[in-house]
Amino acid sequence: MEKWSDCIDLRREREAATIASEDFAVWWAGGRAELEERRALDRFFFDDPEFDDAVHPSCMSYKERYEHALAKGTKFLAKLRQWQRTRLNQEKEHQHQGPEDEETMDIKALHNYRQLLSGPLGTALFQQSFPLRLHFSMFLSTLLNQGNEEQQRLWLGRAWRLDGIIGTYAQTELGHGSYVRGLETRADYDVEREEFVLNTPTLTGYKWWPGGLGHTANVVVVLAQLYIRGQHHGLQQFLVRIRDEQTHQPMPGIDVGDIGPKLGANGVNNGFLAFRNVRIPRNQMLMQHAQVLADGRFVKASQPLLVYGTMVFVRVMIVRDVMFGLLQAATIATRYAAVRRQSPIEPNAPEPQILNHLTQQAKILPEIARGVCYRLAANDLWSFYQRTMQQITEKGKGTPGGGEGQLAELHALSCCLKSVCTQDAVDGIDVLRKSCGGHGYMASANFDSIHGLACAAFTYEGEHTVLLLQTARFLMRQYANANAKKELPASICYLRNAAQLSWGSDLLENVARALEISATEQVREAWQWQLEQRTRGGHTEEQATNLAGRRLIAAATLHGHVQLVRNSMRQMLELKRCVNPQLGEVLQQLVELFVLDTCLRQLGAVLKWNSIGAEQLQQLEQRYEQLLAALRSNAVAIVDGFDFDDRVLGSTLGCHDGRVYERLMEEARRNPLNQEPVNATYQTHLKPLLKGKL
Amino acid sequence: MEKWSDCIDLRREREAATIASEDFAVWWAGGRAELEERRALDRFFFDDPEFDDAVHPSCMSYKERYEHALAKGTKFLAKLRQWQRTRLNQEKEHQHQGPEDEETMDIKALHNYRQLLSGPLGTALFQQSFPLRLHFSMFLSTLLNQGNEEQQRLWLGRAWRLDGIIGTYAQTELGHGSYVRGLETRADYDVEREEFVLNTPTLTGYKWWPGGLGHTANVVVVLAQLYIRGQHHGLQQFLVRIRDEQTHQPMPGIDVGDIGPKLGANGVNNGFLAFRNVRIPRNQMLMQHAQVLADGRFVKASQPLLVYGTMVFVRVMIVRDVMFGLLQAATIATRYAAVRRQSPIEPNAPEPQILNHLTQQAKILPEIARGVCYRLAANDLWSFYQRTMQQITEKGKGTPGGGEGQLAELHALSCCLKSVCTQDAVDGIDVLRKSCGGHGYMASANFDSIHGLACAAFTYEGEHTVLLLQTARFLMRQYANANAKKELPASICYLRNAAQLSWGSDLLENVARALEISATEQVREAWQWQLEQRTRGGHTEEQATNLAGRRLIAAATLHGHVQLVRNSMRQMLELKRCVNPQLGEVLQQLVELFVLDTCLRQLGAVLKWNSIGAEQLQQLEQRYEQLLAALRSNAVAIVDGFDFDDRVLGSTLGCHDGRVYERLMEEARRNPLNQEPVNATYQTHLKPLLKGKL
Repeated sequence: MEKWSDCIDLRREREAATIASEDFAVWWAGGRAELEERRALDRFFFDDPEFDDAVHPSCMSYKERYEHALAKGTKFLAKLRQWQRTRLNQEKEHQHQGPEDEETMDIKALHNYRQLLSGPLGTALFQQSFPLRLHFSMFLSTLLNQGNEEQQRLWLGRAWRLDGIIGTYAQTELGHGSYVRGLETRADYDVEREEFVLNTPTLTGYKWWPGGLGHTANVVVVLAQLYIRGQHHGLQQFLVRIRDEQTHQPMPGIDVGDIGPKLGANGVNNGFLAFRNVRIPRNQMLMQHAQVLADGRFVKASQPLLVYGTMVFVRVMIVRDVMFGLLQAATIATRYAAVRRQSPIEPNAPEPQILNHLTQQAKILPEIARGVCYRLAANDLWSFYQRTMQQITEKGKGTPGGGEGQLAELHALSCCLKSVCTQDAVDGIDVLRKSCGGHGYMASANFDSIHGLACAAFTYEGEHTVLLLQTARFLMRQYANANAKKELPASICYLRNAAQLSWGSDLLENVARALEISATEQVREAWQWQLEQRTRGGHTEEQATNLAGRRLIAAATLHGHVQLVRNSMRQMLELKRCVNPQLGEVLQQLVELFVLDTCLRQLGAVLKWNSIGAEQLQQLEQRYEQLLAALRSNAVAIVDGFDFDDRVLGSTLGCHDGRVYERLMEEARRNPLNQEPVNATYQTHLKPLLKGKL
Repeated sequence: MEKWSDCIDLRREREAATIASEDFAVWWAGGRAELEERRALDRFFFDDPEFDDAVHPSCMSYKERYEHALAKGTKFLAKLRQWQRTRLNQEKEHQHQGPEDEETMDIKALHNYRQLLSGPLGTALFQQSFPLRLHFSMFLSTLLNQGNEEQQRLWLGRAWRLDGIIGTYAQTELGHGSYVRGLETRADYDVEREEFVLNTPTLTGYKWWPGGLGHTANVVVVLAQLYIRGQHHGLQQFLVRIRDEQTHQPMPGIDVGDIGPKLGANGVNNGFLAFRNVRIPRNQMLMQHAQVLADGRFVKASQPLLVYGTMVFVRVMIVRDVMFGLLQAATIATRYAAVRRQSPIEPNAPEPQILNHLTQQAKILPEIARGVCYRLAANDLWSFYQRTMQQITEKGKGTPGGGEGQLAELHALSCCLKSVCTQDAVDGIDVLRKSCGGHGYMASANFDSIHGLACAAFTYEGEHTVLLLQTARFLMRQYANANAKKELPASICYLRNAAQLSWGSDLLENVARALEISATEQVREAWQWQLEQRTRGGHTEEQATNLAGRRLIAAATLHGHVQLVRNSMRQMLELKRCVNPQLGEVLQQLVELFVLDTCLRQLGAVLKWNSIGAEQLQQLEQRYEQLLAALRSNAVAIVDGFDFDDRVLGSTLGCHDGRVYERLMEEARRNPLNQEPVNATYQTHLKPLLKGKL
């Protein structure tokens, strides 16, 4: 059999591009140094054969997957610490500073850790995530943000070093999700023994979902209803040891296990947990804010704003992570579309690269554009978050600042973008998978893992519909403020612009304005409908809100699209100043494609509220197709510029060298089912069947 | 811990319904006798403990899944034959006929088999399908439709009895899909030895995908390029034994194996296959149509129409099967939404069933409506298929008939509906999964398997975009015919209606007409754009077609929606005559909801081509929400009426008794990872890590 040669098609694509993918990569990474640092880290791990999988995880049983992820995860953490020490020493030498405690954990280090674990490096090694991740995200940050000084002294250093402690964070219950006030787990304070007694009163009160809870964590932060002398004091957080530090056996009164396989994220070891009269000392309620004194007096929280902040932070991170997933999928689909040949365009010519079919370009290129623009939005949201937190901190210190009002805007914005971006990422990854035809369906193409993680993000840390309704509530308030001529937050100001669409020469501005008008009108419609349900329909405010649900969701979604469109248009102007002209042109094309695509996907809402003529729509369609044609030649260079290592993509279809068919075949041959020419079931089942006695 | 009681919410739902689900079930099954027959068959299998799974398949390794599906599949076939014999005997006694050969296979029996294997019973036992299915679908039907009398005598009876033969059908190759003329596998006729010599010249020529090919089938129908004395005679089908009848070892020159895990359908044992100088006798080319004579003369096929017919048949079946998948998902989501309580509507009331949230109704009810209407369309398509085939057969016998023109219409319609219905089913199943929040993400909820099978159907037997482009080509021809005042097929006649939308009192008629106008205008736009690319752009016809790709897809999709909407409106009129008034009203509501929902989902296209005022749109929205409210109270009764056995749904969330939380917990505890309180990796990996030396 002839050997399939290294893919000439990809080489030609790279040669024909007008941009250097390396320029794109430098811009994308935020600078040369950042790019090199990341590459060095990649190499540090990927060059180590200990991280190669002998068997593809998709061939493993659920139990094997856990054991594999756990084993690999412990190696990973050890190696990551090794890397950090090296870097720390290099920095020290560089700065000529004295020796420092290398085990100091600061917030920055924790943020870095999270990025490594949930970013490209983490997904490269653990395509369905791994059980130790929640320790470094929710567990440590809760200790930091909720524990008082004594608690941090007792727990934080040990937890950071994994010294006898692996933690997770338990909030959601089997029967209770978004509505946290409905949680059933309770902690009763026993004044005499100065202890809390934890109980799970019902089956629906079982904790359910925490990552690593099943068989990995031995300490849990538990959200429970606090009762003191029978009086309820809201939800509080408690530190509970659930497995023995030496034997890892579940502690008395603890019922714990793994919840079983899922659509994705099968390396996480999500668990269930129930308490039966489990006692913990008083100093294991996290007391940085609310407190229970020894005698049972309850002291209310003074700083609820920062608690709020953590939720916002997690959502900001999700926007960033799903964008990576979308662009990984886009990279795989683009390279595959440049290698795969199918269905002649010209009758007597050979089959072309499928990327030459306009319909294929229309599947792939808008997703690349979307991913890039969501990255811009994620960066912006991150700066907004940092500014707001700083203002709140300064205000806490007595410095005046506008942090609180801003926090409400940030919260609404993060809810809205989390919902819109995860939805679009989930849908986009699926479009990209389908664009690869049958081969996209193979587990070895890795769309399933990427899609699985995005699907999880769609629901966790604020369910999609719930967050959009929260956004809508904010919009309703702001709409009333606008009518009352009150000051509006920056992201909402467009609601006040009453001008109708006048179609000018700037197509993007036309489109952005049309979206703003649609969002404004949809907000108004929802508001009016809600009012009508109350006045004419005789419903309570809450019933009216329920009855306006579809319209509120539509308003919040359009608001999200307005934010994303305006944000990317604003950033484009700055971008073009920082990069070379060729790259600047490509970035402009991407932003333009994203804006037009958003409009076409929302065309119903746009035309419902704007009068746009057939000729103008034709202009829009034509520009859209021009952009596809223009971006076509740089498609491979752009996805190369995202600089995902082949291991990050983890896909037989998407590697840099384009050896798609060899990889599909190698992966198939590696499959354990193929290690014997005749499967054992032939003797036991097939042969008796084949005797023709059926 | 308190025991969660049997679900009172579902009981209340059933009591409050205005229809009896049993009435719905009788209508849905096509009559009382059909319903009882199906239930008896269900019981025959489900009461047999041999078909219970000790471990949930989602916990198994890929290899275990195969072995499990194979073992269960052989039991299933034996038991199915037993059932058939019993029925045959009953019929004989009933008809007082003499003994008949019970092994006679006729086409009807084969169709029944297919329905059992790919219908609800098959998916109940094999949620990710099983390796023997293709034997009864593609392999046997190809022998029937392509084999000559001698070949049928030699192979068909044995294959039907599985007497030494398990077959599959190998067409697609690693590098070649939709464009079958690009297939590389070749069969050279050796005149001297009167044999064909099969070869796979390249890696991309490997057969890839056939179900059961990996380790199960021992005979394959192979599609290969026929060469006689170096001259090419197109694609022909060859019967090749690939595994030894006694040992099951691959035959000399055969390279065969399993292609590995996928997004779904992991019980199928899809395989790869290559030939190296594999010789077969001349009478193993299937010769009912084309023939190769002993001396190497080639005789062309005389009846290509019937070949065409098989393709159409398969697509008709797919429309039916994905509809079942969609409705299984809808059943699970509806019952869950009636059991799950979340997020208060009234501030001081307890958390309501989530089905009371309007946003939840808007997710679930339109999918139920869609599934019901697609079922109507599938039935209609099936009748159309049967009529057409009969006409062609009669014409073949000399009786005049319009079969050929009709076949082109049928082909276009089946391409179009296959694409539109699989797309909507895939999307709908995903909406329904998401509507179940976090628990929808659990494998035990079974959305992943249902979604996986629908995703496969989206791509196989005609890739989505490819089929829509074929439909569009047909529409372009018909549009030219319409302009030339030629006769049009019934499903296309609306293209000739030039009347603009005039909004009358019949809302459904308004909406249907608006969709027709949009489809017509979109066809015209695509046609004009294509023409413009040729005349002004200087492109060839084929290039112009490529450049019009997006517009062609939009036209074909709208055409599909017009067909589905008009079909369900037409059938609704008849339906209401055959059922009791309460049921008739509910069916009418379902059809109405489907039509309005289709319009709202296509609102961009509708408003692009029709002038519809704000008030009219408001009317549409309000009617839509009225329908949601009206159907809300019958939602559970309707899905009960689909009469899916709990085993068919295979879901912890969707069982008839609503014991959602108990089942989630039982399934979690059954998970093999939970059989030991401390996993082995604790000693090997976690304990060393926990020494705090990280």
